[in-house]
Amino acid sequence: MEKIRRVLLKRQPGLTVVMENIHDPHNVSAVFRTCDAVGVMQVELVYTKEKFPRIGKKSSSSANKWLERRRHTSVDDCFHTLREEGFHIYATHLGPGAVSLYDLDLTQKVALVFGNEHRGVSEEAAMKADANFQIPMLGMIQSLNVSVAAAVSLYEALRQRLACGSIDRCVLTQEELESLYEDWIKR
Amino acid sequence: MEKIRRVLLKRQPGLTVVMENIHDPHNVSAVFRTCDAVGVMQVELVYTKEKFPRIGKKSSSSANKWLERRRHTSVDDCFHTLREEGFHIYATHLGPGAVSLYDLDLTQKVALVFGNEHRGVSEEAAMKADANFQIPMLGMIQSLNVSVAAAVSLYEALRQRLACGSIDRCVLTQEELESLYEDWIKR
Repeated sequence: MEKIRRVLLKRQPGLTVVMENIHDPHNVSAVFRTCDAVGVMQVELVYTKEKFPRIGKKSSSSANKWLERRRHTSVDDCFHTLREEGFHIYATHLGPGAVSLYDLDLTQKVALVFGNEHRGVSEEAAMKADANFQIPMLGMIQSLNVSVAAAVSLYEALRQRLACGSIDRCVLTQEELESLYEDWIKR
Repeated sequence: MEKIRRVLLKRQPGLTVVMENIHDPHNVSAVFRTCDAVGVMQVELVYTKEKFPRIGKKSSSSANKWLERRRHTSVDDCFHTLREEGFHIYATHLGPGAVSLYDLDLTQKVALVFGNEHRGVSEEAAMKADANFQIPMLGMIQSLNVSVAAAVSLYEALRQRLACGSIDRCVLTQEELESLYEDWIKR
């Protein structure tokens, strides 16, 4: 219970992940596990071409237990909702105009979009995002595993938030904290 | 062939990974793929309790094709060799005295040690390393997947090397570059 209070104080409602048709349950689980580790509270699901995969209890070490999921029916629906809430939306997409992950300000309210293992982020999502970014790669292989890409990006957000001290300023109200606490101790 | 030259110029002989009994071939493959992406040239294998797993060709997108592997018979053998070559050795290990990943200077010659999925880095390796480090975690789950931990750590090294500009200073001699090039075009 002490742990739940400590974890809730560090939760980052201003950091979220949009999962667009990520197919492999191991990848989904790994992304959930990283989300929990960096304090993400809620993930956004845009499953328009694939079914959201069935997740084994073991593989994510139940990280999904501590994450809210919000389903959207389309990219527009998802991005509209996020923008209403003040999020900047950045999609992992190699293309003209894509900036380096390390040039993004991830201390703001940000939603990071990751796409399907084979197709990547959809053209629609890439086009409608506020910016596209890429993780620098110096090797022979052209792409990273999606769970690795999500981990590198989310941890860069955590690093920036640790560096500027914002991680220690809880943005949840006392009321929200109490309500979450009551909810979590029952899980 | 142009690509091979470009990739070789960015190779980071001063950055390596020690894999200590990592068991799951998917994890080994994912670590290899990340190694290739950040410019690691050679990985160090310490398999004293497990057999080195058989790696499928597909899962790593053949990243292992572009990495040298060096086998060691013991932690001592591995660390002795690395120290002779001037490496600082940092092990992922939660324990008293462990520092944050973000407090390490990863622009020096560094070897990062990652351990088995269940047992973590051995007590011996943790004790004999120059320092132990941990990746900050704010969530309910206690640990990260080993391939995620390796990716977050290796990309922090890449970020630091990009920031200080050392990534653009090739440390291989013209002779080494030519010899590697001759070797790589045959692969």
